[in-house]
Amino acid sequence: MLWIDLRDRYGITQLLFEESDASKELLNNARTLGREFVVAAKGEVIERYSKNDKMPTGDIEVRVHELVVLNPAKLPPFLIEDETDGGEDLRMKYRYLDLRRSPIRQNLMLRHQVARHTRRYLDDLEFIEVETPVLIKSTPEGARDFVVPSRMNPGEFYALPQSPQTFKQLLMVSGFDRYYQIVKCFRDEDLRADRQPEFTQIDCEMAFVTQEDVLNTFEGLIRNLFKNVKNIDLPEVPRMTYAEAMQRYGSDKPDIRFGMEFVELKGASRDLTSGKSFNVFDAAELVAGIRVPGAAIYTRKQLDELTEWMRRPQIGAKGLIYMRYNEDGTLKSSVDKFYDESSLQQWAAAFDAQPGDLLLLISGEADQTRKQLSELRLEMGNRLGLRPADEYRVLWVVDFPLLEYGEDEHDASHGRWYAMHHPFTSPKPEDIPLLATDPGKVRANAYDMVINGVEVGGGSVRIFQKELQKKMFEILGFTAEEAQAQFGFLLNAFEFGAPPHAGIAFGFDRLCSLFGGADSIRDFIAFPKNNSGRDVMIDSPSPIAAQQLKELNIKVSGV
Amino acid sequence: MLWIDLRDRYGITQLLFEESDASKELLNNARTLGREFVVAAKGEVIERYSKNDKMPTGDIEVRVHELVVLNPAKLPPFLIEDETDGGEDLRMKYRYLDLRRSPIRQNLMLRHQVARHTRRYLDDLEFIEVETPVLIKSTPEGARDFVVPSRMNPGEFYALPQSPQTFKQLLMVSGFDRYYQIVKCFRDEDLRADRQPEFTQIDCEMAFVTQEDVLNTFEGLIRNLFKNVKNIDLPEVPRMTYAEAMQRYGSDKPDIRFGMEFVELKGASRDLTSGKSFNVFDAAELVAGIRVPGAAIYTRKQLDELTEWMRRPQIGAKGLIYMRYNEDGTLKSSVDKFYDESSLQQWAAAFDAQPGDLLLLISGEADQTRKQLSELRLEMGNRLGLRPADEYRVLWVVDFPLLEYGEDEHDASHGRWYAMHHPFTSPKPEDIPLLATDPGKVRANAYDMVINGVEVGGGSVRIFQKELQKKMFEILGFTAEEAQAQFGFLLNAFEFGAPPHAGIAFGFDRLCSLFGGADSIRDFIAFPKNNSGRDVMIDSPSPIAAQQLKELNIKVSGV
Repeated sequence: MLWIDLRDRYGITQLLFEESDASKELLNNARTLGREFVVAAKGEVIERYSKNDKMPTGDIEVRVHELVVLNPAKLPPFLIEDETDGGEDLRMKYRYLDLRRSPIRQNLMLRHQVARHTRRYLDDLEFIEVETPVLIKSTPEGARDFVVPSRMNPGEFYALPQSPQTFKQLLMVSGFDRYYQIVKCFRDEDLRADRQPEFTQIDCEMAFVTQEDVLNTFEGLIRNLFKNVKNIDLPEVPRMTYAEAMQRYGSDKPDIRFGMEFVELKGASRDLTSGKSFNVFDAAELVAGIRVPGAAIYTRKQLDELTEWMRRPQIGAKGLIYMRYNEDGTLKSSVDKFYDESSLQQWAAAFDAQPGDLLLLISGEADQTRKQLSELRLEMGNRLGLRPADEYRVLWVVDFPLLEYGEDEHDASHGRWYAMHHPFTSPKPEDIPLLATDPGKVRANAYDMVINGVEVGGGSVRIFQKELQKKMFEILGFTAEEAQAQFGFLLNAFEFGAPPHAGIAFGFDRLCSLFGGADSIRDFIAFPKNNSGRDVMIDSPSPIAAQQLKELNIKVSGV
Repeated sequence: MLWIDLRDRYGITQLLFEESDASKELLNNARTLGREFVVAAKGEVIERYSKNDKMPTGDIEVRVHELVVLNPAKLPPFLIEDETDGGEDLRMKYRYLDLRRSPIRQNLMLRHQVARHTRRYLDDLEFIEVETPVLIKSTPEGARDFVVPSRMNPGEFYALPQSPQTFKQLLMVSGFDRYYQIVKCFRDEDLRADRQPEFTQIDCEMAFVTQEDVLNTFEGLIRNLFKNVKNIDLPEVPRMTYAEAMQRYGSDKPDIRFGMEFVELKGASRDLTSGKSFNVFDAAELVAGIRVPGAAIYTRKQLDELTEWMRRPQIGAKGLIYMRYNEDGTLKSSVDKFYDESSLQQWAAAFDAQPGDLLLLISGEADQTRKQLSELRLEMGNRLGLRPADEYRVLWVVDFPLLEYGEDEHDASHGRWYAMHHPFTSPKPEDIPLLATDPGKVRANAYDMVINGVEVGGGSVRIFQKELQKKMFEILGFTAEEAQAQFGFLLNAFEFGAPPHAGIAFGFDRLCSLFGGADSIRDFIAFPKNNSGRDVMIDSPSPIAAQQLKELNIKVSGV
């Protein structure tokens, strides 16, 4: 007798070859089979003698009468099993073998389900899917474009879309009042584990709506996906302003699976640290911290390591102050020489601390301090196991600032205003007067959906009036001529009857990886590229023929 | 009183403003409205006094209580009505206004329905939609690629896919036994009304199947689409070999909405024309014609015009011979001086001609004659109104030749073999020996779906053995090194356990235009490009900044 595991898309099934009812030839044939051979087998499904309740097909086997080897196989370069011995590079080179592994196959099937239920939900709401062009026009705003030389228009280039933004707005001007598309987008930026040069968006736009309509519609989408893909009944999605998110979590995408909210010892509303000769706190705009439950047991060594972790260039904190609330009720801080017991008691009260808690404090300029403290909070969440991949907390962050000030990319000696979302985002009507006086204070009708600390979607109410759009380009440093040359089609369109409209886009790859409980999007993409933008399987990009370059009127330079 | 037509995505609704229940202000406000103004109106739906049964909403109107002008509009540059006064150029420049016109809006809604039902059908059959990459590798075979310079890999380029062919085959090697994708593809070729630089395919592949399985599965898809989109019960789809289609219709995509099949007076099986001193026919390999019912009334002038039409360079016939079967039973031909009554009687019998019929004959080398006669047949079908846009006849054409001989693109003095479908198409197993002796005779397991004379889809059983695939590349003129450099990943994949597989791709734009009863695909694409590959609305392609070129390590040359 001989057993062979047969794997197909649906799982593994056991084949049984018996001497009794198989000819000698059949059994001999079966003995020649190797790993990954492709076979066709005919036989009878029978109850298995020794059942395997860990396999969906563990109750049965197939007693084979007929076996055809359709294609033999060389030994694969890594194990095709759930846990493989293949490294990232090898797996990517032989991605077609990696895709045979059950976890990756499940990821792609999950992806299909997410797409399917997204379409079903939006179709039922009479959204219409419209394909927008891939060969569009390069624009200076935003990330770097991939470009495509035009053979028929020498010296000119198409760009690949970073998003279908202007096209979906034009569709609203056209009267398609509910649009969506699951669509590839492209950004020529340096890559990380969660960033690919080509990625997929669920791109949506609605006309004659308010921000409230958009939030409700797409909260519905997410709830639907959680129900149908994960069988999770999502509670109502809470909303938080950007200002509140920054103050409570130091992040515009807070992970609210756990607490550890910021407490300010010195800030806008109180000061519990000044006047004790501790210069670091005295000079700080903000002294804030988090309370880590049960972490009073952290040793001095552990705390020193944590301090070093905070001082790494990625975070850049100057230091880390701690206060232990010991189980015996005593308080012990790293700044005991400045602060007496009663000060520490005040701190403990401010944090609502309990015996066993550890307080971790940092200080400095407010924005930077919050950012650093956010990193610490997430790290402590990880250490305490408070961020399980299979627990989901969804949040809307609203009322983003319209603009942020930054260095001019062409001239580092100057600063300029940048659109925080994009140049088409509408300021809140009541904040429009501030555009002239204090642009940094202007809030936008912009919103992000955050799941477990990851921004999965974002959008805004759009500008739909030509004058306001022109004003916006002006603030962003466009001359009137530049605005007209780049976005004249949109400005003109607003003159011919443009409805109020708003939209949102979800990062589809990221959404799928979240549903799959994974950090990296790469294994939710069938054929991803590596950090150099290469597809190592097909060996792309690659040089092209001289004839092609000539036809395209370009030359390779400086290589 | 004042009536205003309100148009939205769903149609036109009449608004009624009455002095009686509206304030003076409301009526005055309504009087300021112009064409294409965007308004919000609140009111009461009432039965209309004078109903309009030509409008879906003709029974009602809305008595308005409240009116807000959301955005005024300039007068649009052309009429936004079913029949517009706008020319193609103007419509394309203001495509967002053109898309407001009901016929175009209906087209895009039809397109969405076709996509939706395609997905539903394939999902139900457990096909999985997998996104394949857009940034791939340029290959020399096939049409011209669009390329994308890589900033991170100087001097190297991605290519945009002409189809996801190799990726879908790799998915079969990965064990995803049923794949589909509705996907953008790209070809940098000269453009026509029915060809766009970017177009959409329904791309499908199946493993462990025969040609028969594929034909049945996708006949099912088309039947499903006709039923759900057009409410047409499609009969079983007939099949015809390529050889038969060429002989009977002179085309591998015959329009079988009407007959007028070819009759050969001189060919492989008989000769009813030779030996009468008519040198043209005596020297011809083939004398064939069509019988045009009721066209014996064609005047000499009309026949002369038809002859000129056949002589145009696009067709290139040397001449056109006719024979009238007059209503009085007499026969009259343009070659009466060579053929007597009894010869003409023989011809009439061969055509099964009736009084009133007109026979149109041409002659020459067989392939060319068939091609020319096919054009004539289609033209006569048009003239006789035998090709109505709302009647559909679907056909499978099977058993295409594997190879066709053509001029070498790099060296016109040589010929070489080209893959008729693509290099991955499997020869019929019984014809494989002919590869060595008579490649032109080898038939492929390749098939096209033809609707009303338009090829809407095509596919093949694929090669899945490395040695046969290498042999195929060799026949196509690849050196072993070239084959390995270009398609090594696929050749290698075939060694690790590749199942037999087959697939098909449908031209989605064309399918939609057929369902919509239109010849051009352009109005089934939201934002199409013109014949120079330009999007005149956004003015793309366009020059890019020197800084962009520098980052990409390319220079524009020869402009």
